[in-house]
Amino acid sequence: MGLFSKDIKTMDDLFVHQLQDVYYAEKQIHKALPKMIEKATDAKLKQGLEAHRVETEGHIKRLEQVFQQHGAEVKAVNCPAIDGILKEADEVAGEVADKQVLDAAIIAACQAVEHYEITRYGTLVAWAKQLGRDDCAALLQQNLDDEYAADQKLSKMAESGINRKAA
Amino acid sequence: MGLFSKDIKTMDDLFVHQLQDVYYAEKQIHKALPKMIEKATDAKLKQGLEAHRVETEGHIKRLEQVFQQHGAEVKAVNCPAIDGILKEADEVAGEVADKQVLDAAIIAACQAVEHYEITRYGTLVAWAKQLGRDDCAALLQQNLDDEYAADQKLSKMAESGINRKAA
Repeated sequence: MGLFSKDIKTMDDLFVHQLQDVYYAEKQIHKALPKMIEKATDAKLKQGLEAHRVETEGHIKRLEQVFQQHGAEVKAVNCPAIDGILKEADEVAGEVADKQVLDAAIIAACQAVEHYEITRYGTLVAWAKQLGRDDCAALLQQNLDDEYAADQKLSKMAESGINRKAA
Repeated sequence: MGLFSKDIKTMDDLFVHQLQDVYYAEKQIHKALPKMIEKATDAKLKQGLEAHRVETEGHIKRLEQVFQQHGAEVKAVNCPAIDGILKEADEVAGEVADKQVLDAAIIAACQAVEHYEITRYGTLVAWAKQLGRDDCAALLQQNLDDEYAADQKLSKMAESGINRKAA
């Protein structure tokens, strides 16, 4: 899809574009997670991120199913938003000297990633329903539910032990 | 704060860095909103975005108060995440031909912005409390509540009339 070529003409085009966007995002997240896991110190945080890395593989497969159900080519488009979020995570992590403070920064970075996914899947579920694609909406809802649950777990870590030790 | 110079040593440093990040983000959002308002067609959407533009001015002032309460310099740091989110909004809007589809794309872009702010304010409230700065936490919570409310309004628009007309 070329930039500024007005290629998005219908809600269906917009839906497919957004699918391609979140497909790219999930792949970039899957690529970025091992580095975050390596940098994390707290064992519970490390385990949680590793579990989410495996979960992300499931999300990618589920997205491929949605593309297929909808009769669209499995394709990723560049997503400057997730690139920016991951770049910022990397930059901030590079500036943190203390290990426990770094864990707090990693949790915050992962929550920014989760919220990006939550907003995109929320939009995709709404659009799928409007397009009469309840089958696609159901699959996308499963990814949305996982992202919500992941964010909740990170919130608990942020509010409990890990950061408090660093404060 | 220099990149990769390990300038963040304590939770207090991380808190101030995150404040500077969201301060930059709010300013960029305030700058980007008039363009979105201009592109929007639906009257309710236009009004909602205009109200949020005014609200954003309040958020910026509240952040300045937090800096002052915490004895930190009022300062913005570059935030690649919001730059990426706004860049993507601009690119997608440039690709949409139909006005009603464009409204749907604008709603989705604004929700991505709201979710970025929600995650950052959520983190800042948690960190302020851990640092014993309940005064700062209370102000940040007000911004967080506003962003939640803005996101809810956008969700209602996304699920109701505007997109349906375009589908």
